[in-house]
Amino acid sequence: MEKKKNISMAVIKRLPKYHRYLQELINNDVDRISSKELSEKIGFTASQIRQDLNCFGDFGQQGYGYNVKDLYNEIGVILGLDKRYNTVIIGAGNIGQAIANYTKFDKVGFELTGIFDANPKMLGIKIRDVAIRDIDDLPKFLEENKIDIAIICVPRISAQRVCDEVLRGGIKAIWNFAPVDLDVPEDVTVENVHLSESLYTLVYQLNDK
Amino acid sequence: MEKKKNISMAVIKRLPKYHRYLQELINNDVDRISSKELSEKIGFTASQIRQDLNCFGDFGQQGYGYNVKDLYNEIGVILGLDKRYNTVIIGAGNIGQAIANYTKFDKVGFELTGIFDANPKMLGIKIRDVAIRDIDDLPKFLEENKIDIAIICVPRISAQRVCDEVLRGGIKAIWNFAPVDLDVPEDVTVENVHLSESLYTLVYQLNDK
Repeated sequence: MEKKKNISMAVIKRLPKYHRYLQELINNDVDRISSKELSEKIGFTASQIRQDLNCFGDFGQQGYGYNVKDLYNEIGVILGLDKRYNTVIIGAGNIGQAIANYTKFDKVGFELTGIFDANPKMLGIKIRDVAIRDIDDLPKFLEENKIDIAIICVPRISAQRVCDEVLRGGIKAIWNFAPVDLDVPEDVTVENVHLSESLYTLVYQLNDK
Repeated sequence: MEKKKNISMAVIKRLPKYHRYLQELINNDVDRISSKELSEKIGFTASQIRQDLNCFGDFGQQGYGYNVKDLYNEIGVILGLDKRYNTVIIGAGNIGQAIANYTKFDKVGFELTGIFDANPKMLGIKIRDVAIRDIDDLPKFLEENKIDIAIICVPRISAQRVCDEVLRGGIKAIWNFAPVDLDVPEDVTVENVHLSESLYTLVYQLNDK
């Protein structure tokens, strides 16, 4: 499948949601669905859904709707979920351990290859058969292994330094849980999970009601 | 401070980021900053920043800029971070435990009042002095305690049921980590942290570069 360029971030951010809803339809043994029915489930308008999917190809059929399994697989391919990715987690604190223990990511193609921490007390402790390594060994590890994604779970103060290290190791995708905006070159993608910001947004809205 | 209504979600979502950057300036002993300097740090335009802050009041002074500490405190008040909130975590799995262990939230006013899980093996285990309780005791607990925020960390399949339970208990703010869009009435606020969607967005972009 040839990907069209200049797809907006808004569309890209909706793709995983389509994928999740289609997975649910498959779980409920639904074989096909109209864009109208899908729109009622997912909460986007039917024309929005058609527009979004049109960015990537010709899906669905007039009068038939979408074949659920086909569309699920196709969106999986668009997202790149048909491939496997090697990941490392840097920072084996609360969030790092939670992500490491989350076996679901492994099932959908994300292989946890290494966990690194600066705390000597953590070294050697195993999470799902992966032993925590010394963060000083990270450069050598990145040299010897092809890693696709770095998951940064270190404190704010160390995050940029760790980021620079993984960039030197050739990594182009960073999943960042540190509460800081990382400085990266243009060819590197960062996706942030800023938990405090999410919680504060919730509180603002709670007080605003 | 009188809050103006109809502030857009885009503005609201930027507030925690201002708050975070101002905290960093305070940490670095910066007393005052112009909107131009702030814009260079935070990555929004100076006029965007002025516009955002104008939604809430009259901050900064021509030729002087912003007093960092005052602006930090004022944004804290706007967000509601000058109050304390009682929280419960439902689901003591990986993510639930990570959130429970995250002491930073406690320091900024979020008190962990209860943790609930359906797994009998977890009952009584303490996380930061809070013992995990049986999820069946949740309704009674919500009746007897004033809880502001429910943090839902249960599997997808149980999330809506748990959500309905906390709504019956009178909770109006839900921080949802389950990979599902919860069905709630209009006066209830849900803030989602959908980790898979964040990871999939990252992977899409990695493949798109």
